[in-house]
Amino acid sequence: MKKVLSFDIGGTKIAYAVVDGEGRFSNEVIKVSTPKTAAGIAELLKTTAKGLEAEIDGVAVSTAGAVNHEGTRITSHTGNLPEGYNQTDFTALSTRPVLVENDANSAGWAEFSLGAAKGCRNAVILTLGTGVGAGIIVDGRLLKGKSGAAGEMHFPIDSGRKRICNGCGMYDCFESFASGTGLNTNAREYMGPESTSYDVIRGLKEGDHQARAAFDKWQDYLVKGLIMLANIFDPEVIVLSGSMAKFVEYDKVNAAANAKILTQPFALKEAVFENNAGIIGAALLLIDKLQNKK
Amino acid sequence: MKKVLSFDIGGTKIAYAVVDGEGRFSNEVIKVSTPKTAAGIAELLKTTAKGLEAEIDGVAVSTAGAVNHEGTRITSHTGNLPEGYNQTDFTALSTRPVLVENDANSAGWAEFSLGAAKGCRNAVILTLGTGVGAGIIVDGRLLKGKSGAAGEMHFPIDSGRKRICNGCGMYDCFESFASGTGLNTNAREYMGPESTSYDVIRGLKEGDHQARAAFDKWQDYLVKGLIMLANIFDPEVIVLSGSMAKFVEYDKVNAAANAKILTQPFALKEAVFENNAGIIGAALLLIDKLQNKK
Repeated sequence: MKKVLSFDIGGTKIAYAVVDGEGRFSNEVIKVSTPKTAAGIAELLKTTAKGLEAEIDGVAVSTAGAVNHEGTRITSHTGNLPEGYNQTDFTALSTRPVLVENDANSAGWAEFSLGAAKGCRNAVILTLGTGVGAGIIVDGRLLKGKSGAAGEMHFPIDSGRKRICNGCGMYDCFESFASGTGLNTNAREYMGPESTSYDVIRGLKEGDHQARAAFDKWQDYLVKGLIMLANIFDPEVIVLSGSMAKFVEYDKVNAAANAKILTQPFALKEAVFENNAGIIGAALLLIDKLQNKK
Repeated sequence: MKKVLSFDIGGTKIAYAVVDGEGRFSNEVIKVSTPKTAAGIAELLKTTAKGLEAEIDGVAVSTAGAVNHEGTRITSHTGNLPEGYNQTDFTALSTRPVLVENDANSAGWAEFSLGAAKGCRNAVILTLGTGVGAGIIVDGRLLKGKSGAAGEMHFPIDSGRKRICNGCGMYDCFESFASGTGLNTNAREYMGPESTSYDVIRGLKEGDHQARAAFDKWQDYLVKGLIMLANIFDPEVIVLSGSMAKFVEYDKVNAAANAKILTQPFALKEAVFENNAGIIGAALLLIDKLQNKK
């Protein structure tokens, strides 16, 4: 069975492991502080790949940013990663085949292949963290768009210029309501200027009415986004992942969204893979590619 | 070259023609008042197909409603068509192969194959009429979803329960702002209770400020929908069709939407095929299928 070295490149940490076609790790997942320069990141990837060369069939990379259809280079900006990182020539990092994919797409592919969306042909994997991301599966294939940037969850969902989005700079954007950042904003609006999403979650457990109002508003906007995704994609399942996913009231949100859609009902599920979804998904994409080439 | 008989089934009229693989008609497009019963519609299709049997390789049907992946039956309600129509056994209508497809998908496929989106791999064809519909092409294939219902342009785009959507019953829905019905609502809001979209269009030409405000509001919501489609699908082109498409200020809308998106710029174009897009698209889908079977 084929095995690949798979990296997940984050702004703070880089994680990696050797993974097989069933998502099993050969060893512990290693975490390294992200080097401060693009050259430093490239060097780390190269050295690690060299060190593991004898036992791997390829190198997979899950990364921020849009990635081209060939899986060889980044075609967009990459947020909080070092300047020049998005110019990295990934194919030069190893003598083995290298495949790069966007992190939300990689996570989506992991859930689709082996996780909460296994067995489906159409699925949306929504990552609710500081921002909101999506990996979208259409008829068994990753939705990429013309430049690999498809699945950006930025769209107007309100009016009145109430909030400005950190991710896209637009007023009234979905991300500014349905992300962790959005819940933080709700915390300040409902619970006072020093409050955060942690206060909302704690307050919910204690029966605090303001916390409930802040949380309900967050969840209402999530429902709005799910209605859009269900009506546009008619998926079997929408999977929620990311740091906020565990707070969602699944039955309530599921019922509220399914009551409003014109398409057939979808299932709402929590992701199976947590932090390792990116590593697993990128690895599976590369292994699929290597096996189809045989 | 293969030729098929292609029907476009509307609530008021049924149109049909014999079409070849390059979208050319063998004869004039015939229009018939839609029979009042489902049996009447089936009879009309059957008789016409029988009469043209010698010169056709198949029968294509563009219809309201979601259609299954096999293109054999409708899987949803069908609005203003007679009761029981959505139960029609289309494959029994002719001895020739029959293919059914949703009308927005058919129109989208016509624009993708031979019209304004020709040469693209990813495109959205948005029909702006009484309601809003979409035919979406992802990497060269029609987006269908699990039950053939994908592409429903119903999603919250505002808050405050300002309008209720005729199409889906939801408050603050895109369709209730960006459709012809939406422009009618704007006309009443800005120009008085008796005003309609016709008054808006006439007033625009005459430099009427209230008409301009009503129209700008309509166009602003169209821009919001385009931003969503561009960020989610990253398409090469978004094509506008339907009765409202000719009123859109393309350069202005194009610039406003492209200025806000995170994906690469898309082109905004007016549809090439007007009323015959459904007939042509359904015909091309069937001809493609027949030719791939050879």
